[in-house]
Amino acid sequence: MNPKEEMYLWAKDLWPITRSLTGDGVRETLSYLKQLMPSLKIHNVQSGSRAFDWTVPDEWSISNAYIDDEYGNRIIDFSENNLHVVGYSDQIDLWMTLDELESHLYSLPDQPNAIPYVTTYYAANWGFCLTHKKRKLLKKGKYHVVINSKKKNGVLNYGELIIKGESDKEVFLSTYLCHPSMANDNLSGVVVTMALAKWLNSLEKRKFSYRLIFIPETIGSLAYLSENLQYLKENVVAGYNITCIGDDRCYSFLPSRKGLTISDAAAKHVLENTDKNYKKYKWLDRGSDERQYCAPGVDLPIASIMRSKYGEYAEYHTSLDDLNVITESGLNGGYQAIKRSIEIIENNITPRITVHGEPQLGKRGLYPNLSIKDSTKHVDVRTLMNLISYCDGENTLLEIANIINKPFWELLPLIETLIKHNLVIDEN
Amino acid sequence: MNPKEEMYLWAKDLWPITRSLTGDGVRETLSYLKQLMPSLKIHNVQSGSRAFDWTVPDEWSISNAYIDDEYGNRIIDFSENNLHVVGYSDQIDLWMTLDELESHLYSLPDQPNAIPYVTTYYAANWGFCLTHKKRKLLKKGKYHVVINSKKKNGVLNYGELIIKGESDKEVFLSTYLCHPSMANDNLSGVVVTMALAKWLNSLEKRKFSYRLIFIPETIGSLAYLSENLQYLKENVVAGYNITCIGDDRCYSFLPSRKGLTISDAAAKHVLENTDKNYKKYKWLDRGSDERQYCAPGVDLPIASIMRSKYGEYAEYHTSLDDLNVITESGLNGGYQAIKRSIEIIENNITPRITVHGEPQLGKRGLYPNLSIKDSTKHVDVRTLMNLISYCDGENTLLEIANIINKPFWELLPLIETLIKHNLVIDEN
Amino acid sequence: MNPKEEMYLWAKDLWPITRSLTGDGVRETLSYLKQLMPSLKIHNVQSGSRAFDWTVPDEWSISNAYIDDEYGNRIIDFSENNLHVVGYSDQIDLWMTLDELESHLYSLPDQPNAIPYVTTYYAANWGFCLTHKKRKLLKKGKYHVVINSKKKNGVLNYGELIIKGESDKEVFLSTYLCHPSMANDNLSGVVVTMALAKWLNSLEKRKFSYRLIFIPETIGSLAYLSENLQYLKENVVAGYNITCIGDDRCYSFLPSRKGLTISDAAAKHVLENTDKNYKKYKWLDRGSDERQYCAPGVDLPIASIMRSKYGEYAEYHTSLDDLNVITESGLNGGYQAIKRSIEIIENNITPRITVHGEPQLGKRGLYPNLSIKDSTKHVDVRTLMNLISYCDGENTLLEIANIINKPFWELLPLIETLIKHNLVIDEN
Repeated sequence: MNPKEEMYLWAKDLWPITRSLTGDGVRETLSYLKQLMPSLKIHNVQSGSRAFDWTVPDEWSISNAYIDDEYGNRIIDFSENNLHVVGYSDQIDLWMTLDELESHLYSLPDQPNAIPYVTTYYAANWGFCLTHKKRKLLKKGKYHVVINSKKKNGVLNYGELIIKGESDKEVFLSTYLCHPSMANDNLSGVVVTMALAKWLNSLEKRKFSYRLIFIPETIGSLAYLSENLQYLKENVVAGYNITCIGDDRCYSFLPSRKGLTISDAAAKHVLENTDKNYKKYKWLDRGSDERQYCAPGVDLPIASIMRSKYGEYAEYHTSLDDLNVITESGLNGGYQAIKRSIEIIENNITPRITVHGEPQLGKRGLYPNLSIKDSTKHVDVRTLMNLISYCDGENTLLEIANIINKPFWELLPLIETLIKHNLVIDEN
Repeated sequence: MNPKEEMYLWAKDLWPITRSLTGDGVRETLSYLKQLMPSLKIHNVQSGSRAFDWTVPDEWSISNAYIDDEYGNRIIDFSENNLHVVGYSDQIDLWMTLDELESHLYSLPDQPNAIPYVTTYYAANWGFCLTHKKRKLLKKGKYHVVINSKKKNGVLNYGELIIKGESDKEVFLSTYLCHPSMANDNLSGVVVTMALAKWLNSLEKRKFSYRLIFIPETIGSLAYLSENLQYLKENVVAGYNITCIGDDRCYSFLPSRKGLTISDAAAKHVLENTDKNYKKYKWLDRGSDERQYCAPGVDLPIASIMRSKYGEYAEYHTSLDDLNVITESGLNGGYQAIKRSIEIIENNITPRITVHGEPQLGKRGLYPNLSIKDSTKHVDVRTLMNLISYCDGENTLLEIANIINKPFWELLPLIETLIKHNLVIDEN
Repeated sequence: MNPKEEMYLWAKDLWPITRSLTGDGVRETLSYLKQLMPSLKIHNVQSGSRAFDWTVPDEWSISNAYIDDEYGNRIIDFSENNLHVVGYSDQIDLWMTLDELESHLYSLPDQPNAIPYVTTYYAANWGFCLTHKKRKLLKKGKYHVVINSKKKNGVLNYGELIIKGESDKEVFLSTYLCHPSMANDNLSGVVVTMALAKWLNSLEKRKFSYRLIFIPETIGSLAYLSENLQYLKENVVAGYNITCIGDDRCYSFLPSRKGLTISDAAAKHVLENTDKNYKKYKWLDRGSDERQYCAPGVDLPIASIMRSKYGEYAEYHTSLDDLNVITESGLNGGYQAIKRSIEIIENNITPRITVHGEPQLGKRGLYPNLSIKDSTKHVDVRTLMNLISYCDGENTLLEIANIINKPFWELLPLIETLIKHNLVIDEN
């Protein structure tokens, strides 16, 4: 089975699990991933632990939840859709009037068929989410409101995978698995990251080491950073936050805070040469774990390659973000884009030509020996000569690719040929 | 009375005085200003003093001047408009033909109702200025031409006001008062500078000290610089030349010579956030005392915020630049723009966040605790989070304001809140 | 006779000579040039010598060549046009069928009246070039194919001219003379370079020394570089490769590899102020000896000023590039552009004003003493004041010319006046 079929199947398997920041849903998801990649290590962080300015919240579990009307009709049932209950809702069992209930109901008037995704992680509260269509049918009267949930001192879980390379310097990939049943945000990120793990693991050799983590968003990245900050700052040379990468409508890029890292440059090069119309967001448009990874004083070289970005597609954070939103080709496009970016990071040498003046390629069979009008306009010869003319030991191969406006992956075999002929060495 | 009413009244009071580079008109104007701000110090520079490459000219006074025709009709009378005589005209009492007179008459064919403003400070000469309409009515014949003026070894006067702050580093404001009865150029500059003096003086505390001077243009700034150059170069951190700042038709900006000072950055930020269509001039369009302040080897950080710039409005340097050209709101707009620029200069800290990762604003009541689609798109929350994300101890608050495209004055209360919560310190 | 007439006449004289990389044609051309400028030194490089990655080829000579049909009709005759034989063709004397002949014939279907220019310097081969019109008339049958050529261990020749200046630092001009009878490419380069040599030689004094070389393209510049690389790298401060500079259809510019040298800046300034619509090529469009001069590790400051660039005009590398393509005014425009660029390089001081503030130009008769509306808008006064305002000892005169948007040659007399008045010195 090829990666794109695998990725979609994994997403289907993971779809029904009720995930949150903490609890059984996260553990069940991590167990599934560990089956796929047994070297995945599952970590615990105790409730109440400090994570910089934050505190790891209690573990939350929910067995069932519903609202019945006064005639015993079940109006909302958590077992039908795990978005129906506001995440981290307190336990409750009360009769109340519709008026009293209203301030605990969430729906979207502009999207009357969508159940919104709502959470209240850091303040005690409770609520139900429902389609606006159903909400408008609610009649005056008494309702029996039940949420069987529990918060207890427990743990926050996350998965961590280290794949060693020749160097201790690391490429860091992060994705989040705290969202319940939504597909683009963020089952797509989870399965693309797992496919990348399998690909990286399958390589004969890697220049860099790879660190991949599957965490709850925000508190997970903060907890992970607070445990590993110094090591990460010293060793991470590049990386991506992997989110919303499964639909097939567009490619999106969001830079690191300063936008000047190799992760930024590689991603922009890949997307520019994949789909010129890719959407270019700014740091001001951020909204996922890059907020922590690139925060002042942290400043890891982390950028984001996405398909339809969080907050920018209609189904975002609603029940409409289902398995129809993501596709095999959508997942595969995202997977390939990050794979290509990693290949750039792995192979971005600083080539220097070993001879003065142009090398005589003709005697090596690399150049047409007959000079006739337009003969040097032949595209491959021009590309080869242009590549050579920038092999000055100052430009990286990626910079040369941008200067001469060719995809990195077209230059790589040429530079390998030149290295084989001893015409080029890596300056670094 | 608020500043804008005061400013207009001061301009009306100062309007009739016959000012020139030197003499009683300047002294009368300075006396008026000293009444408003008794700490104003009035200085003398002796005629013949050197000011770099220049020499302070003799003091010029004029009692009356007129042209009568052969029938005793008074054709031009200086007492009716002090623009009628070319500034620094020699004494004269002669009969001459119209042909002989012509080369000493100045009028503007394109503006037949305007008396032009003409001076001959640095070469002995004399002349009369009149409307082109009146000039065309002059008949052949003899004319009696009288100018009762005097040049004598005397003094050049200027006013200087020092308002101390916590630091000896200074903000420098300069305006010129050598122009006779013209309103935008430059009674507006004189009264706006005085209003700024009163505002600065009223502040409980100031970070910087303030130096405000009221001088004759060109020779005054040269004389002042030649007396104070070293001190100014060591202590002036910002400043503005204040001219043509009283009408209500537009805002204008003219940069310092290199355009890279905090004065430039603050002024551009203020105007960009006041009226996006403000006129952006270049150093090549200069024409006032910035020519001296920013000359090579002087290079003080002086820029210009104006309303309709000198040379760029129809009434410029004519009798049409009267009290109708300036308005209360025109003066007030200019006053506010410089005031805001100074407030930026005073408060432009380099903020650094004190925690790693994003701070948890929710527990401080600064962030909505419930996360629902679009909740973090709320503009104030986004602005606050964007501001924090650039508090890295590298960007000044003004630079952050430009990056996140918000007025400095909207960020200042937010940064003060963050400082109060110990979340931000000033890196400098 | 003025340069433009001379240049055209030289081109006519040189037109019929059969040139190639090596051999009598080159020697005959160099002898002609030595007559014009007796200090030209003619050098030999032995066949088989190494030139970096290349080897100097054997000397090639050709006495005659033709194709006869089976009836003895002469179909192609080298004596009629020296483009008829592929350059460096092997000796041959064979009967063959049209089919056998076809793969050795070169013509241009899109330009049926043009004989193409084809060479095979570095691989043993032979061929004939002809118009496509004539080719289509060839009938099946036997043909007698004769090329009386010889390759022997001999020499490669080039000419070198050194014109000493006050400094040992050099301006380097290079042109190539290996092309047979084609006018814009590159008799134009040869005659413009010779005219520049005569002008430089005629100057009373020169700040820089000048090195002018007349070489075969590619192998000649490689051989010259391999003999002189270290000296050139230490001493050459600017220079141009002179090619395709004789027609009157446009101006063209091709930068050095990094595009940041004084040669680039001077050339762009000259062309910008000569013809705003000049064609701006990139390093990626290169194709002549700048490929060697600017190669990584060589990196001499060599740019190209051209008229219609090689490869970009219809007649390029065909028999149509004849003496009708170049014109006296075309050659003269190219000559003047390089002459002006050299004048900039010679006179590009870093002026610094010697007084603080603006100098009082009025007392030196350089400024109108009467100030009336618009008087300082007079263009010469503005230009003079703008020039002075940038004489800060940081900007070169060329940089100032670009900032204030005036041709260097208009500022030069002004700066000389200021120097004469002791108002400006050269900071360097």
